[in-house]
Amino acid sequence: MKKKIPEKTIQRLLLYYRYLYFLLQQGTKNISSKSLADLLEIRGSQVRKDLSYFGRLGTRGAGYDVMALRDTIAEILKIDKEKKVCVVGMGNLGAALVAYKGFEALGFKVAAVFDISPQKINHKIRGHTCHDIKNLSKIINEHSIEVAILTVPAEAAQETALRLEKAGIKAILNFTPVKLSLSKKVKINNIDLAMELKTLSFFIR
Amino acid sequence: MKKKIPEKTIQRLLLYYRYLYFLLQQGTKNISSKSLADLLEIRGSQVRKDLSYFGRLGTRGAGYDVMALRDTIAEILKIDKEKKVCVVGMGNLGAALVAYKGFEALGFKVAAVFDISPQKINHKIRGHTCHDIKNLSKIINEHSIEVAILTVPAEAAQETALRLEKAGIKAILNFTPVKLSLSKKVKINNIDLAMELKTLSFFIR
Repeated sequence: MKKKIPEKTIQRLLLYYRYLYFLLQQGTKNISSKSLADLLEIRGSQVRKDLSYFGRLGTRGAGYDVMALRDTIAEILKIDKEKKVCVVGMGNLGAALVAYKGFEALGFKVAAVFDISPQKINHKIRGHTCHDIKNLSKIINEHSIEVAILTVPAEAAQETALRLEKAGIKAILNFTPVKLSLSKKVKINNIDLAMELKTLSFFIR
Repeated sequence: MKKKIPEKTIQRLLLYYRYLYFLLQQGTKNISSKSLADLLEIRGSQVRKDLSYFGRLGTRGAGYDVMALRDTIAEILKIDKEKKVCVVGMGNLGAALVAYKGFEALGFKVAAVFDISPQKINHKIRGHTCHDIKNLSKIINEHSIEVAILTVPAEAAQETALRLEKAGIKAILNFTPVKLSLSKKVKINNIDLAMELKTLSFFIR
């Protein structure tokens, strides 16, 4: 079933999950598909369609049980299984991401951080001992890390990405402005912060 | 003309611009639409279509003059005009973004940074004096800032966004996981780092 779920649905499920998580913390026990839809600014029919995909989760009139729905989505998305990530490149952005609380809330654990600079190697960065990038493969294997966050300078991006692939990394969140060229086996998401800002500001009247 | 250019074309123009910028620095004088297309992993016909939109820029056989093309795109996108941004929320991510070199390369200048914490207000953060968020409106107006980067905690996001709108901000790059509710006049781009990582890692086999 997993393979048939479209990426857009997955993204919405993650958003549902996060709202349900907040609602639970606030003590909310039930929620209608309409309220959930309003929070996400989508149609209620879309919510019902997404959720019905996974069987009967709601009761007509009473809405959804927040905790049951949260747990079901967590199970579908395997959110409750901790996933180990490494961060490669300990510049300002890399160091900030190591400490980023949002990752933890969605079940990610930073298991290793890497840099090439002797000033950083073997020093503590936000509580993590920075490893020499030379030991990338060894440490990724030791910790069974599958996901990497890439924040090295542009000129080192492609080479580092190839090393990550060789080390067995399956997915890369790429913060460099470089279009990485790897085998299809590695899933890549690109976040180009400057481009986001530029595109945004172009549409200012 | 500006309003007719689709967002996807703008994004590609920005990518062309950045490659041309690199090429110029490397001393490359001419480039074919095919080489440009290969760098971007799109079809050559797409490049020719995008660029023909702005008049005759290439010569059949000789390809494009890198500098002329760079300058034309810069003019179309108004890249050469410096744009002032403010960063609101001086946590790890906010502080990293203040120092992010990529923004500068695309013509952005951080003109002010804000926080609510007495430990940060009036202190220097990456060379910028941190302002009290109470003075948001005053400082945004003084510096004619149009773009804001929002990196406050989730629970303060909507309130802060409303203050930014009131202060005259026209575009917000939103790093909080909150779906901001503002008037249509404010253009918003959302970057949800944890969601990007989650969506990515879901597709690992």
